[in-house]
Amino acid sequence: MSSSSPSSDVTVGSINPKVVKCEYAVRGEIVIHAQRLQQELQTKPGSHPFDEILYCNIGNPQSLGQQPVTFFREVLALCDHPAILDKGETRALFSSDSITRAQKILDQIPGRATGAYSHSQGIKGLRDAIAAGIAARDDYPSNPDDIFLTDGASPAVHMMMQLLLRSEKDGILCPIPQYPLYSASITLHGGSLVPYYLDEATGWGLEISELKKQLEDARTKGTSVRALVVINPGNPTGQVLAEDNQKAIVEFCKREGLVLLADEVYQENIYVNDKKFNSFKKIARSMGYGEKDLALVSFQSVSKGYYGECGKRGGYMEVTGFSAEVKEQVYKLASVNLCSNISGQILASLVMNPPKVGDKSYESYIKEKDGILQSLARRAKALEAAFNSLEGVTCNKAEGAMYLFPRLNLPRKAIEAANAAKVAPDAFYARRLLYATGIVVVPGSGFGQVPGTWHIRCTILPQEEKIPAIISRFKAFHEAFMKEFRD
Amino acid sequence: MSSSSPSSDVTVGSINPKVVKCEYAVRGEIVIHAQRLQQELQTKPGSHPFDEILYCNIGNPQSLGQQPVTFFREVLALCDHPAILDKGETRALFSSDSITRAQKILDQIPGRATGAYSHSQGIKGLRDAIAAGIAARDDYPSNPDDIFLTDGASPAVHMMMQLLLRSEKDGILCPIPQYPLYSASITLHGGSLVPYYLDEATGWGLEISELKKQLEDARTKGTSVRALVVINPGNPTGQVLAEDNQKAIVEFCKREGLVLLADEVYQENIYVNDKKFNSFKKIARSMGYGEKDLALVSFQSVSKGYYGECGKRGGYMEVTGFSAEVKEQVYKLASVNLCSNISGQILASLVMNPPKVGDKSYESYIKEKDGILQSLARRAKALEAAFNSLEGVTCNKAEGAMYLFPRLNLPRKAIEAANAAKVAPDAFYARRLLYATGIVVVPGSGFGQVPGTWHIRCTILPQEEKIPAIISRFKAFHEAFMKEFRD
Repeated sequence: MSSSSPSSDVTVGSINPKVVKCEYAVRGEIVIHAQRLQQELQTKPGSHPFDEILYCNIGNPQSLGQQPVTFFREVLALCDHPAILDKGETRALFSSDSITRAQKILDQIPGRATGAYSHSQGIKGLRDAIAAGIAARDDYPSNPDDIFLTDGASPAVHMMMQLLLRSEKDGILCPIPQYPLYSASITLHGGSLVPYYLDEATGWGLEISELKKQLEDARTKGTSVRALVVINPGNPTGQVLAEDNQKAIVEFCKREGLVLLADEVYQENIYVNDKKFNSFKKIARSMGYGEKDLALVSFQSVSKGYYGECGKRGGYMEVTGFSAEVKEQVYKLASVNLCSNISGQILASLVMNPPKVGDKSYESYIKEKDGILQSLARRAKALEAAFNSLEGVTCNKAEGAMYLFPRLNLPRKAIEAANAAKVAPDAFYARRLLYATGIVVVPGSGFGQVPGTWHIRCTILPQEEKIPAIISRFKAFHEAFMKEFRD
Repeated sequence: MSSSSPSSDVTVGSINPKVVKCEYAVRGEIVIHAQRLQQELQTKPGSHPFDEILYCNIGNPQSLGQQPVTFFREVLALCDHPAILDKGETRALFSSDSITRAQKILDQIPGRATGAYSHSQGIKGLRDAIAAGIAARDDYPSNPDDIFLTDGASPAVHMMMQLLLRSEKDGILCPIPQYPLYSASITLHGGSLVPYYLDEATGWGLEISELKKQLEDARTKGTSVRALVVINPGNPTGQVLAEDNQKAIVEFCKREGLVLLADEVYQENIYVNDKKFNSFKKIARSMGYGEKDLALVSFQSVSKGYYGECGKRGGYMEVTGFSAEVKEQVYKLASVNLCSNISGQILASLVMNPPKVGDKSYESYIKEKDGILQSLARRAKALEAAFNSLEGVTCNKAEGAMYLFPRLNLPRKAIEAANAAKVAPDAFYARRLLYATGIVVVPGSGFGQVPGTWHIRCTILPQEEKIPAIISRFKAFHEAFMKEFRD
């Protein structure tokens, strides 16, 4: 009891230990270093052997120069300031279909009030558009009442963790490596992460035998495993799951009574011709499984794809296979935060219902979209080849998503130096890389990896014209690093 | 252990009991009834004795017709679609200072990328503007590094509860009646709400003796009380604290080692000449108390004030008096969700730094602002008088905020009828009101009240020209209700 303690009793030792324990490497220590270096470059130009910090730590395309899709921004601007909709000058400044679309969206908002709290699941008309977009993508129906619009995918993931986790005896099966939102959210909500390892040797394959083994292991230890997280396309690993594999995963979840939490935020980011994105809902429905067979939540975000609108914080989850009573609880959780931001809601509807053939903006829209996706594919390939050309580095193909996750076979002496510096060897490498080149990557230890292996996650997002220079800076650094530490 | 249970084991009985326990009356049962009635009115016009649902349950001004401030929306639209900034037509459509302001804001955003994730506390230049706005308001400095931009005030409150609460042995002192975000958030994060009662007889006065009594009581029961929540101006109660009272509250928190969580989202909503908003930071600093003396968090939102931009989900908290280590933990929590939405961030900076004398938009801005605030004051007065004219109803003055919280002295027969229907008497009254008039109010039981007293919360937000009709509908309903149940 802290009956008469001073206010300074709010210390790291006296706050919620789950908060202290939680880690989020994507914005962790390496980024704090990078931000300091960036300030130093501003105040003392020339103080470091590079003139800019290159943030390859986070899937944040527009921070590295990617331009937003014009049509989306036109509609957002018009919805922000509807007073200009019927002005003559507006027709000169905006595409005609963006004006029509903004009108249509405003008509769907009660009172055309983009500044009002909406229904806690999101504006009904926008959910209708999203459900129609999902149905068109999957060829299976989607119910707007299953859609919960959220400020990006992260709050949706938190909401599901908060719903499912009762104590540390409740577990969630997560891939290793994983996007650390999952580990952070599970820690914050007091549950246990049950790891399953992706197989690097088979291009980060997801083996059902591994799922089974880890599930049984966790159950033996008394953990009640509530859900399976699958990230497809993979983050940080970039693989795209094959249809047969997805079917086996659905079967596994159904048999074992697990909620399938499907992180599908990279559904538009596919860079190889022999792979295709299939939503887990489409797979489940194609197997004849409906609402009663499988509890499935699909997460989508406006931050990824070719749109890359991270700062808009838009996204949704499609919640299927839960009872009406449990969905009411999800609604209540959503309602405590009132609603997600309306611009993000509008953008989520646009992303799932972009211009169609015949629309005035269609051609320019497709040109922008294809330009971004084709360039991302070229960048992924160039960086993958570069990593594979480095001594002691191997890198699987980025079939999708926005990252490469090369493995570093570090020399013994480098590992010893890292141990002496009390950091993980890949964090040691990443920090050296930052101070030598200004390039920010995230150490594999932030995502989890097979013990004794070391990786980094590097986005494929720097602008294409900068890639050659980045590759040479990286190569020069790596050669010097190996020279310094080679056994 | 649910080793081989089917997916249907996700039931209300098997999910997180904190979620099930949590309540949020502002969007609770009465609103679900109202939404159903609204649908019925659409599909079967004339099916009810009213032709529209009037949502007086929630402080959502634009949903009831309040127009957004033009300057703010101009800047937002230009930041959404900067491609039009240097077009000739733009100068015809937008005020010149909105163009300048948008340019200035874009210059503060790295790469002018409004679609990029920002720093997890928010864009530095916008935090600078907010800190300057706070300093101008308070005449005491504000540090931009203390500002955390959030998607409205709600996530900020959740973040602080998540930080401070370790178990149900940790308590938070909350006013009763309170805005149910606090009770919901404390429940979700597993802590205990320690109530202190506001004194209805003295205009919802906040008595230090009551704080002391409840604190001692909680400590005797083994509760470690970590923070005191004060809502000023009050929600749902509408009182504005006097300076001396605020000083005594600061002194109390300092002496007792409590974090002061100051909900100051209604700081612009003051309707009486003899009261003035003082931030708790200003009060503390004026007493000579600095960082070391008091841990203080001030919450602000773009949803309230004269701006009422609820759907934009912008807001911030100013976190002072915490150690660097604890602030790092707050930063980490913010970083797990990456950042708040950029439009909301921009709007928060505009609200704290609106047009100044001499700016092109100043006159029209002031006209819009004063028009809204003066109208709100008139509406508050009219509704207050109307409530006080009803048999058995007494209503304190709305000095500030957006609500009236009249007390209903219900006849014994009405209470018996409510008991028979298994609802709280004020919920019974609110439901009857809804079905008779289409007016949605929140039962006092959703906010907490002295046991045996009954209230409703009604916003002052319906458009001014509708107020007379609302008052007569309300009066007619109340008279009929009293006639039916009078003892």
